[in-house]
Amino acid sequence: MTVTVLKVSKNSNPNSIAGAILSSMRENERAEIQSVGAGALNQAVKALAIARGYVAPSGYDLVCSPAFQDINIEGENRTAMKLVVEKREL
Amino acid sequence: MTVTVLKVSKNSNPNSIAGAILSSMRENERAEIQSVGAGALNQAVKALAIARGYVAPSGYDLVCSPAFQDINIEGENRTAMKLVVEKREL
Repeated sequence: MTVTVLKVSKNSNPNSIAGAILSSMRENERAEIQSVGAGALNQAVKALAIARGYVAPSGYDLVCSPAFQDINIEGENRTAMKLVVEKREL
Repeated sequence: MTVTVLKVSKNSNPNSIAGAILSSMRENERAEIQSVGAGALNQAVKALAIARGYVAPSGYDLVCSPAFQDINIEGENRTAMKLVVEKREL
């Protein structure tokens, strides 16, 4: 199953990203977040902290595994951080 | 058991933080990283990605759970991100 990658920028709203994480968890049991730069990663991690609060009443928690990812943006090579988000039963 | 909190700044070296994460995992089976600001969080998450590579040959992976944390730095209230790092068997 293909998971839609959530591309986050430094201007993304953490609450909106958190909602998108939940939506992806419901559909695919996982979420993938891609960010380029410190500001974008900051929003992604904040969103994950918020999303943990959203899912806690349902009896599970979220954990993430970060990895580097080489990507190409408009012909330029950049290193993105990919966060794979998965469920963990409480 | 008290886990020493690894305080990371934007000037911290991700490889050094990765080494400190491994050391904490060996002693306590977990690590806690605290960062204030996007630059510091960026170094912390990079370190975690590097540390995953260090532990993979030992047959386990690392996952993290981020949370907000209110802290006081020199009389000023700040919001830090706390990353709790735990093992996951492969």
